[in-house]
Amino acid sequence: MIATLPKLKVNRDRLDLSIAKLAEIGKLANGGVCRLAFSEMDIQARELIKIWMKEAGMTVSTDAVGNIIGRYAGTELQAALATGSHIDTVPIGGRYDGCLGVLAGIEVARVLQENQTRLRHPFEVIVFSDEENSVIGCKAIAGNAPTDPERYRRKDGTDIQTCLQRVGGNWHKLHTAKRDRSEIAAFIELHVEQGGVLEANNKQIGVVTGIVGQYRYMVQIVGRPNHAGTTPMNMRKDALVAASQLVLAINRLGVETIGDQVATVGHMTVSPNGTNVVPALVNLSIDIRDLSEENLQYLITEIEKEAVAIAENTGTEFTFEQKLHVLPTLAKPELMATIADVCKKLDLSYDYLPSRAGHDAQEMGRFTDMAMIFVPSRDGISHSEEEYTSPEQCAQGAEVLLQTILAIDRSY
Amino acid sequence: MIATLPKLKVNRDRLDLSIAKLAEIGKLANGGVCRLAFSEMDIQARELIKIWMKEAGMTVSTDAVGNIIGRYAGTELQAALATGSHIDTVPIGGRYDGCLGVLAGIEVARVLQENQTRLRHPFEVIVFSDEENSVIGCKAIAGNAPTDPERYRRKDGTDIQTCLQRVGGNWHKLHTAKRDRSEIAAFIELHVEQGGVLEANNKQIGVVTGIVGQYRYMVQIVGRPNHAGTTPMNMRKDALVAASQLVLAINRLGVETIGDQVATVGHMTVSPNGTNVVPALVNLSIDIRDLSEENLQYLITEIEKEAVAIAENTGTEFTFEQKLHVLPTLAKPELMATIADVCKKLDLSYDYLPSRAGHDAQEMGRFTDMAMIFVPSRDGISHSEEEYTSPEQCAQGAEVLLQTILAIDRSY
Repeated sequence: MIATLPKLKVNRDRLDLSIAKLAEIGKLANGGVCRLAFSEMDIQARELIKIWMKEAGMTVSTDAVGNIIGRYAGTELQAALATGSHIDTVPIGGRYDGCLGVLAGIEVARVLQENQTRLRHPFEVIVFSDEENSVIGCKAIAGNAPTDPERYRRKDGTDIQTCLQRVGGNWHKLHTAKRDRSEIAAFIELHVEQGGVLEANNKQIGVVTGIVGQYRYMVQIVGRPNHAGTTPMNMRKDALVAASQLVLAINRLGVETIGDQVATVGHMTVSPNGTNVVPALVNLSIDIRDLSEENLQYLITEIEKEAVAIAENTGTEFTFEQKLHVLPTLAKPELMATIADVCKKLDLSYDYLPSRAGHDAQEMGRFTDMAMIFVPSRDGISHSEEEYTSPEQCAQGAEVLLQTILAIDRSY
Repeated sequence: MIATLPKLKVNRDRLDLSIAKLAEIGKLANGGVCRLAFSEMDIQARELIKIWMKEAGMTVSTDAVGNIIGRYAGTELQAALATGSHIDTVPIGGRYDGCLGVLAGIEVARVLQENQTRLRHPFEVIVFSDEENSVIGCKAIAGNAPTDPERYRRKDGTDIQTCLQRVGGNWHKLHTAKRDRSEIAAFIELHVEQGGVLEANNKQIGVVTGIVGQYRYMVQIVGRPNHAGTTPMNMRKDALVAASQLVLAINRLGVETIGDQVATVGHMTVSPNGTNVVPALVNLSIDIRDLSEENLQYLITEIEKEAVAIAENTGTEFTFEQKLHVLPTLAKPELMATIADVCKKLDLSYDYLPSRAGHDAQEMGRFTDMAMIFVPSRDGISHSEEEYTSPEQCAQGAEVLLQTILAIDRSY
């Protein structure tokens, strides 16, 4: 428990101005941002961030995968308290996803500097490379980045070495980006929720319990292409009827299983896709996420059982191919308790919730203590130009980040 | 009832050779044919057909929509007994769809000529224009062709007047193609089944009971695009879950309703179609066919009721747009009885079945007595290079056509 909170306080308007200035780089017509990792816009934004870090009294370095590390020196200890997020966006993204976490980190440094305050620990703000695509930045720090360069090739064909060189990295030194617990004692990431739970529950702050694990499969369903007029119902092998049964089974398992999982079929293609042809082939995706790896395994086993039964009753054939398996990362309970305590002291309402989207903190949590702070997303919208979190809400998140860093600087 | 059958008989090998020669024009690599209506290949094939008609003792004319009419003069009556079909194909079509009906008609004329036989009625073989697309040929004869030229514009942009000029027609004289019952007393079309019913039931000849009516709708289902990770199951408006419920409802109505209907969702697109986005929009087609217009109306009413219930339970919105409404055409019972009787005399097994694909006979049946004769399609496959009906089966169909024409020449 924290007795009283120090007098330090973030500057709402300064944070808001930083968000607005960063959003100018790659600005879209309707308030959104296009700043793909390793693009010219990304490079411009990185230069601005480095200037701001230096102005806030930080020393700046770039590691082999282009992660920018701003470090505000401490007084006593070697291991840093770290925060950060990313400044790359999806092709049509918002102004807050990632950027808020980076800019709130810099705001914390600015507050420390203007109050001539130093922590016992060094304080680091990390800008992770390419969170929206390969996630190479945080994976390299955690020592989990795949070493096959082809895994990273961009849609436009650019190879990873070229990408990293553009941002001051070097693919051939990938391994040097790895860090460990003796270097980073704890990592706390502030992020917009990207969902509608906080808003629906009328809470100001989310204390993240962990970042869900994820299974992704592609399923191929093979039926038989018959004429939709001339083929009686009982002579069909309709791949779309089979696929529809699977979609509903997955949705039912997602809704009815006891737990906090989500289960989604987001992608489906039908072939030959003619109005007068019985569908012969359906490809669809399955995405399931939960904090419990055990529950995820239960769900995928049940889905595969359903598929066997559906194949039998429709005369179709199913093939499952696993595309992704990300293990859940749980937040450190002591850090969650500190964040909750800070919220109480600041008189901010809060709720515990899992993060069902991936974040840089997921990889950081694989080697050090991790926690995340969420602020509400209006209408739960993200990865969209309509993404919005008010200046007040952004400042509340940054304030919780500042006070949490100050609190754990004493306890860690 | 027919006492005995005349001695006339079709020549299997001659018919088979004609099928093979016609299939050379627009031949594809794997035995199929590409002969789009009004194309260079179509024009070449038309010239060959006209030569064969003349060699078989027919006078040949071309009407305003390019229908080729071969006429073998009769002895007594004005109204013709007619047969025919089409020689245009889908982009990757087979050798039998349409062509068999035309070439069997010419074979009937050849048999009459070589036996120096004349019927009481004139005997006509009609090659209908563009059966696979606009169906302008038979519709113009029935007086039902739309008069808006834009309805006929080809995918490559060519207008209908240009198309018709290429094959000796004239768009501005469209109305002159119309004929009536005083000119054509009956129309009998031989065609491959394009389905698997005869083969499955081990029957040699299909006596078609009618050509089904068809309703086609496009349905739009609007949900909400949410992040598949961050949006709890109970906060979703998943358009694909709604669409899957509709697909299964349509399939259930198709299978369980008492009747002979088929109901198909052949086309579906999902948007934004990302693995990690809850589907926001689904477009799908509904195709239902039956001989009973009353049953078709019942089915579409039930489908729309299901949609209302699904919209309610999924939070989505449905819009139905009707794209096609074709009325059923029933075969003339007296003609069906004659065909069945011919089969018995020829010792051919037969079955009654509806045609669930459209045919030129559908329009002809709107103004005169109509019947159709089916022969089996191997594996029920059509509109494919794999389409196949054996020389023996083709000849059996042609023999039934010949004997039916001879029989009704006495009764009509």
